[in-house]
Amino acid sequence: MAGNSFGNIFRITTFGESHGSGIGVVVDGCPSMIEIDLPFIQQQLGRRKPGQSTITTSRKEDDELVVMSGIFEGKTTGAPITLFIKNKDQNSDDYAHLKDAFRPNHADFTYESKYGIRDYAGGGRSSARETAARVMSGALAQSILKKENIQITAFVSQVGDVKLKKHYSELNFANIDSTIVRCPDPLISKKMIEKIELVKSEGDTIGGVITCVIQNLPIGLGEPVFDKLHADLAKAMLSINAAKGFDYGDGFDGLEMKGSDYNDVFVADQNNIKKVNTKTNHSGGIQGGITNGQDVYFRVAFKPVSTIMQMQQTIDKKGQQVEISGIGRHDPCVVPRAVPIVESMAALVIIDHLLRFKAYNKQ
Amino acid sequence: MAGNSFGNIFRITTFGESHGSGIGVVVDGCPSMIEIDLPFIQQQLGRRKPGQSTITTSRKEDDELVVMSGIFEGKTTGAPITLFIKNKDQNSDDYAHLKDAFRPNHADFTYESKYGIRDYAGGGRSSARETAARVMSGALAQSILKKENIQITAFVSQVGDVKLKKHYSELNFANIDSTIVRCPDPLISKKMIEKIELVKSEGDTIGGVITCVIQNLPIGLGEPVFDKLHADLAKAMLSINAAKGFDYGDGFDGLEMKGSDYNDVFVADQNNIKKVNTKTNHSGGIQGGITNGQDVYFRVAFKPVSTIMQMQQTIDKKGQQVEISGIGRHDPCVVPRAVPIVESMAALVIIDHLLRFKAYNKQ
Amino acid sequence: MAGNSFGNIFRITTFGESHGSGIGVVVDGCPSMIEIDLPFIQQQLGRRKPGQSTITTSRKEDDELVVMSGIFEGKTTGAPITLFIKNKDQNSDDYAHLKDAFRPNHADFTYESKYGIRDYAGGGRSSARETAARVMSGALAQSILKKENIQITAFVSQVGDVKLKKHYSELNFANIDSTIVRCPDPLISKKMIEKIELVKSEGDTIGGVITCVIQNLPIGLGEPVFDKLHADLAKAMLSINAAKGFDYGDGFDGLEMKGSDYNDVFVADQNNIKKVNTKTNHSGGIQGGITNGQDVYFRVAFKPVSTIMQMQQTIDKKGQQVEISGIGRHDPCVVPRAVPIVESMAALVIIDHLLRFKAYNKQ
Amino acid sequence: MAGNSFGNIFRITTFGESHGSGIGVVVDGCPSMIEIDLPFIQQQLGRRKPGQSTITTSRKEDDELVVMSGIFEGKTTGAPITLFIKNKDQNSDDYAHLKDAFRPNHADFTYESKYGIRDYAGGGRSSARETAARVMSGALAQSILKKENIQITAFVSQVGDVKLKKHYSELNFANIDSTIVRCPDPLISKKMIEKIELVKSEGDTIGGVITCVIQNLPIGLGEPVFDKLHADLAKAMLSINAAKGFDYGDGFDGLEMKGSDYNDVFVADQNNIKKVNTKTNHSGGIQGGITNGQDVYFRVAFKPVSTIMQMQQTIDKKGQQVEISGIGRHDPCVVPRAVPIVESMAALVIIDHLLRFKAYNKQ
Repeated sequence: MAGNSFGNIFRITTFGESHGSGIGVVVDGCPSMIEIDLPFIQQQLGRRKPGQSTITTSRKEDDELVVMSGIFEGKTTGAPITLFIKNKDQNSDDYAHLKDAFRPNHADFTYESKYGIRDYAGGGRSSARETAARVMSGALAQSILKKENIQITAFVSQVGDVKLKKHYSELNFANIDSTIVRCPDPLISKKMIEKIELVKSEGDTIGGVITCVIQNLPIGLGEPVFDKLHADLAKAMLSINAAKGFDYGDGFDGLEMKGSDYNDVFVADQNNIKKVNTKTNHSGGIQGGITNGQDVYFRVAFKPVSTIMQMQQTIDKKGQQVEISGIGRHDPCVVPRAVPIVESMAALVIIDHLLRFKAYNKQ
Repeated sequence: MAGNSFGNIFRITTFGESHGSGIGVVVDGCPSMIEIDLPFIQQQLGRRKPGQSTITTSRKEDDELVVMSGIFEGKTTGAPITLFIKNKDQNSDDYAHLKDAFRPNHADFTYESKYGIRDYAGGGRSSARETAARVMSGALAQSILKKENIQITAFVSQVGDVKLKKHYSELNFANIDSTIVRCPDPLISKKMIEKIELVKSEGDTIGGVITCVIQNLPIGLGEPVFDKLHADLAKAMLSINAAKGFDYGDGFDGLEMKGSDYNDVFVADQNNIKKVNTKTNHSGGIQGGITNGQDVYFRVAFKPVSTIMQMQQTIDKKGQQVEISGIGRHDPCVVPRAVPIVESMAALVIIDHLLRFKAYNKQ
Repeated sequence: MAGNSFGNIFRITTFGESHGSGIGVVVDGCPSMIEIDLPFIQQQLGRRKPGQSTITTSRKEDDELVVMSGIFEGKTTGAPITLFIKNKDQNSDDYAHLKDAFRPNHADFTYESKYGIRDYAGGGRSSARETAARVMSGALAQSILKKENIQITAFVSQVGDVKLKKHYSELNFANIDSTIVRCPDPLISKKMIEKIELVKSEGDTIGGVITCVIQNLPIGLGEPVFDKLHADLAKAMLSINAAKGFDYGDGFDGLEMKGSDYNDVFVADQNNIKKVNTKTNHSGGIQGGITNGQDVYFRVAFKPVSTIMQMQQTIDKKGQQVEISGIGRHDPCVVPRAVPIVESMAALVIIDHLLRFKAYNKQ
Repeated sequence: MAGNSFGNIFRITTFGESHGSGIGVVVDGCPSMIEIDLPFIQQQLGRRKPGQSTITTSRKEDDELVVMSGIFEGKTTGAPITLFIKNKDQNSDDYAHLKDAFRPNHADFTYESKYGIRDYAGGGRSSARETAARVMSGALAQSILKKENIQITAFVSQVGDVKLKKHYSELNFANIDSTIVRCPDPLISKKMIEKIELVKSEGDTIGGVITCVIQNLPIGLGEPVFDKLHADLAKAMLSINAAKGFDYGDGFDGLEMKGSDYNDVFVADQNNIKKVNTKTNHSGGIQGGITNGQDVYFRVAFKPVSTIMQMQQTIDKKGQQVEISGIGRHDPCVVPRAVPIVESMAALVIIDHLLRFKAYNKQ
C-alpha cells in the first residue's frame, strides 16, 4: 500500500536508501529448486552501476551482490530470497547545500510535503540507487525465464533528437553492449554518444527512449480486464525513475493507420499446425491483454535528468528564493544505464504472469 | 489475480458479459455517509453508450443504472455498492459466423488458447461493453472527488493525423460535449468528424488520442517507488480496450528538450506563503511519483478499431483459412466514446490514492 | 481492505443486504472449462436456509440460485462468476422498533459508531443472510474439489453442554443430515434437539460447536510463515457470524499431553513406498503450516444467538435506557444451519491454497 | 502469496533462516515522523530470546537489533523500515544427524515434499527463530500504539494442567515478568515452573495457553465481513509456530451459557454521555467484527514442543525406519517465550486496522 512492493505471486519488496547501510530486496514467491545465476545478476548490476563509462556519472559504486537469505546449497528453497548491496563512497557533503532547498523536478518538495521529513542526503527512496534493487530481483527473474527460453532484450533507441528508425528485427542484439550508449546500431550509437557528450559539456542533460523486445513467450500470459499484460508492463515501466511514457506495438506511431492496415492477419504456421502466426505484428504480441505467441515489444520514454551542472533558481523550505547547482556527479542522460532496469522490470512482470498462468491452467 | 479487480482501498470488481444478464461492478471500500450522484453516473454512462451519434455504432443500449446494494436512504453505508446495467438488444446471430473464426486483432485467438473455451457471442470479457462497469464505478468515484473540488476532464486531442496542438490551458472545457467527437476546439472537431466519416464510408477505422487533465489535486498523492501516481494511471489507462500508449507531462514530446529547459522552477505563491508553485509544468504535476499541487495531465493512445466492414482473411480453430467481415454495428473510431472511460479510470486511481493518503497521514 | 473479499487466487467478493434486492457473490479466479454443479450449490443453500426445521427460525427464504455471469454453455469460462439470490418475505416492520435501539451483542452500536449510518432493517452486512453468499461460492469451490476427490465434511459436535465425544473416525458421516441438528450420532442428536427445544421454549438461545474434517488432501498445501493452512482456516472460520473460537488437531484438548505422546510418529506406507503416514494424527494433518497427507480436522465454537425472545434492557442512540425484545423469527441455536457455512469457508481456503500450490509447483 | 508477508496498510515481510546471515523484516507502510522506541524493541527481543532462564533452551542468542533502513535522524521517514538480527552460535553439527530423517511433528517432511529441498540446518523458515522478525516489527507497532494509549498485554494462563482461573481484571499485570514463566499470579506461576521443570527432567515437553488483553482501543476497528477484527487476530495467532487454537471473549468456555446470560447489556457511561459501556464483556470487546470500546481479550493454545530429549522412531527420506533424539538445546515449554510474540502479532493486527480506519473515516 506504501508502494515498495511489486508483483503478486512472484513479489518483491525493496528497501534502503542511498545514504544508509545499503539497498536490498526481498523476493517472495520464487519457486524452489532453481539454481540461481549469481554472475548474471552481478553482470546486470554492472550494466546499471554509475561510473561505468565516460557518458555516465563518475561516481563509483561497486555494487557487490550479497545473498542474505533463501538460497541453500546453491538452490532456491521456496523461502524469501534477500539480495543486498552495501553503500560506499558516501559524500554527504555533496548534499549539505541542498538540505533546505527544493531541487527542480526532484522529489524534494513532494517528499517534504507528504512526509514532513526528508532524507536530504541522497534523496531517500527517490534516489536512482533504489533501481539497483529492481535489477537484483529482476535479473533473478530474467535468469529463471531464460531457462524457459524467454528472452528479454532492451536497448537505447533514441537520445534527444537522434532516433534509431530501424525495426528491431533488422538489428543485431549482440551489438547492444558494444558501445557505451547501448544502441545496437553502430552509426546511430556514435551520434547518440556525440549528443550526450555535447550536452554534458554544457552542464546539461537530455532525454531518450529505450525499446524492449520479449521473445519466445508462451501463448496465454496476461489477464483479460485490468491486469492485461501490457497494462502491467506500463505500470512497471512508468514506476522507473524519470520515465514519462510507454507504448507497445505500434503505439503512438500507429494512430494514423487505418484498421485494415493495422490488423494482424492470422496465418497457420507452416511447420506446426497447432501454432498460429500473424503476418504482421502491429499489436505488439498482445491481443485482449493476452500474449498471442508473437514478440512483445514496447518503448519507454525518459525525461532529461533533473540534476544539471548549471545554476538554477528555486526556493527553500521557508519559501525564500535560492540558487543551487548540481555539484555532485550525475548522468547527462539516463538511458544507457536504464537498459538493465527496463529488462528487469519486464522480467518481473513476465514471471509473475507466468506463475499466475500456472495457477489457473488446467493440469 | 484473475484481473477483474482494480484499486486497493477503494476497490472495484467488475463482472458480466455483453451477451448475458448484464454488466455490473461491486465497489468495496467506499466511505460511508456520502450522498451518491446517480444522475451524474447515468450521464457518464450516456456519454459511453453506443448509438449516441452518427460517428458511433448504431447499436442501441439504454444502459439504465440499477443500484443493487450498498445504498440506504440515499447514502453510502460503508457496505459494498453494486451497480448494474441489464443487457438488451442482443443479436446473437451477428456473431454466429464468428463462432470458429479468429477475428484479426481481437481476443478470439488468445481467449480460446488461454481458456479452452470462448464466449463467441460478444467476446465475453473482452467486449467493449465491459467498460460500462468502469464508467459506473468511476463516475461514482468522480462524483465523490468533485465534492473535494477535484476536477477530472478528458477530451479527444487526435484522430488519425488530425491533431489538436493547443495547450489545454487555451481550451474551453465547456465545449467538449458540444461536438460529437468531444474535442473542445470547434475547428479541429470539424476536421476530426470529417476524418471519421471518411474512414467510416470506406468501411474502415482509425485511431486517436485522448488527453486528460486533473485539477485541484492535493499535494502528496502517490507512493514513492512502484505505486507512483503516474504508474498507476498508466496501468489504468492501458487496461482500457484498444489503448496502446500513455505519457504524462511532456512525455514523448519532451525528449528533445534539455534538462535546463525541462526543469520546472519552483516559485513561492504570491497569495499563500504555504503554497508553492512551478513556473512551468513539464513534469505534469507529479514529481518523484507524488503530486506537487500543479495540474496532472496525460495522453492515452488508442489504436484503430479492429472490427472493420471489409472482407478480411483469417483462420479458424482448425487452422483453415477463412474470410470474415464485420457485419455487426461497430465504431469507426473509439475515442469519442472513450472519453468518459478515461475520466472514470483516472477517478478510480485518484480516489484510491486519496484514501491511502488519509491512512498514512498523521492525524 | 473493507473486508468484503476473501481469498487470493480464487477470490470472492460478496455484496448485498438482507433488506435490499438480494445477496450475491462474485468469484474471480475460477479456472475455466469446469462444469459447475448447480444442484449441489442449491442443496447447500437449502441446508443453510431459514425455516428448514422446527429448531430453526420459521422465516422462509427460498434462496433460488441465479447465475448472473461467468458460465457459457454450462462451463466456466475463466470470467468472474456471479451468483445471486433475491430477497423475499421482507417484514421491515419487524425492525421498526429497533431503529434507534442498540440490540445487545449485535452490531447495531458498532456499525452506528463506525459508519455514522446503519441499515437497521435487517442489519445490513451484519445480517446472517450474508452467509448465503459464502455458501454459494463455497459450494462452487467444494464441488470443484470433489472432482479432485477432496472431501469436506462438517457436523455438529456440541450444543450447550451436550457433547459428541467420539472420534470422528467412529462416526458415519452419511447420518449427518438424517437429523435436523446435523450430528451424525443418533443418540447425541436426540439430546441436542431436546436441548435446543428446551431453550427455545424459554425464549432463549444456546451455543455449540461444529467439527469439520477434510480428507484426501494432497501433501504440500499451505505456506510456511503467515499463510499456514490452519491460520487461513482460523481466519475463515472466525469470520463467520457468531464464531468465537477455533482449534485444529488436538487443539485446546491436547494441552495436558506431553510431547512424547503428542508427536505423530512417521511410518512408511505399506502399499505405497512413496507415501508416508503417521501412526496418530494429533497434529490435525498439518505440520509447519503445510498438509502432510493425513486428515485435516478442526472445531469452530459458536456463541448463543444474540436475539432472544425475552425483554432486554439496552440503550438507544441518545443514551436513553430502553427495553426491547426479539419479536422477529430467529434461531435458538445457530449450529445446525452453520454446517454448510463451515464447509463452504473451508472449501474456499482449500481451493485457494490448491491454486497457489499449482502456481509454485514445478511443472 | 508465498506467505512471508502480513498486514495490508502496515505490512511486514520477513526473511532469513536460523542458519544463514540472520533474520530480518521489512516494514512497509509505517507513517512518517514517528520517533521509534528502539530500546522497547530490544527489550521485547530479550523476552523472546532463547537462554533467558532455566526453563528455556540454553542456546544463547544476543539478538542485537540493527536498523538497516527507513530511519533518518531518529524518526521514520515513510520509507520501508528494515530491522535485522545477525545469527550467531551456529552448531550445524547439531543437525547433521537429521539431514535425512523426518522429525515427528516438525516441518521436515512437509517442506521436503512441498519444495523438494530442505534447509535441514535449523529448519529454514520453520525455525522458531523466524518469530524474532515478528517481534521486531510487532514491537515497533506496539510502541506506536502506546503513543495512542493502546495497551497490549499477554501472559501465560495455562501450562499443561496448571490453569490460571482468575479473570484478568483480578490480576496485576506488573507482575508478569516477575517470574520466568510470565504468569502474573505468583502462586500459579510457581506451579507452572514446577510443572515445566518436571517435564524437562523427563526429557519431555508440555503445552500451554497465553491470554492477551488489548485495552483502550478506539471504537470502530475491524471490517464487517471477512476482515472482522477477531478473524484477523485468529489468523495472526494461528500463524505462530506451535499454536493450535484461538478463542476470544468467552470463547469455548461460553458455549454452555444461554443467550440471556451471554448478552452484554449496554449502559450509558456515567461520566461521558457520548460513550457507551456494557455491563459485562462476554463478547470480548468485539461485536459484528468491530471494536465496541471494551477490552478485547483472547486466548492462544500452544501444543507441546515437538523436539524432545528422548529417542523417537521415525523414517528417513528413503522410507527407512530410523531412531532420532533431540540432542540440541530446546525449550520444554514454548509459552514463556511466546508472550512477546503474541503481543507482537496482536500489535500488527491492531495497527493495520487503525490505519484502515483512518483511510475510511470521514474528515
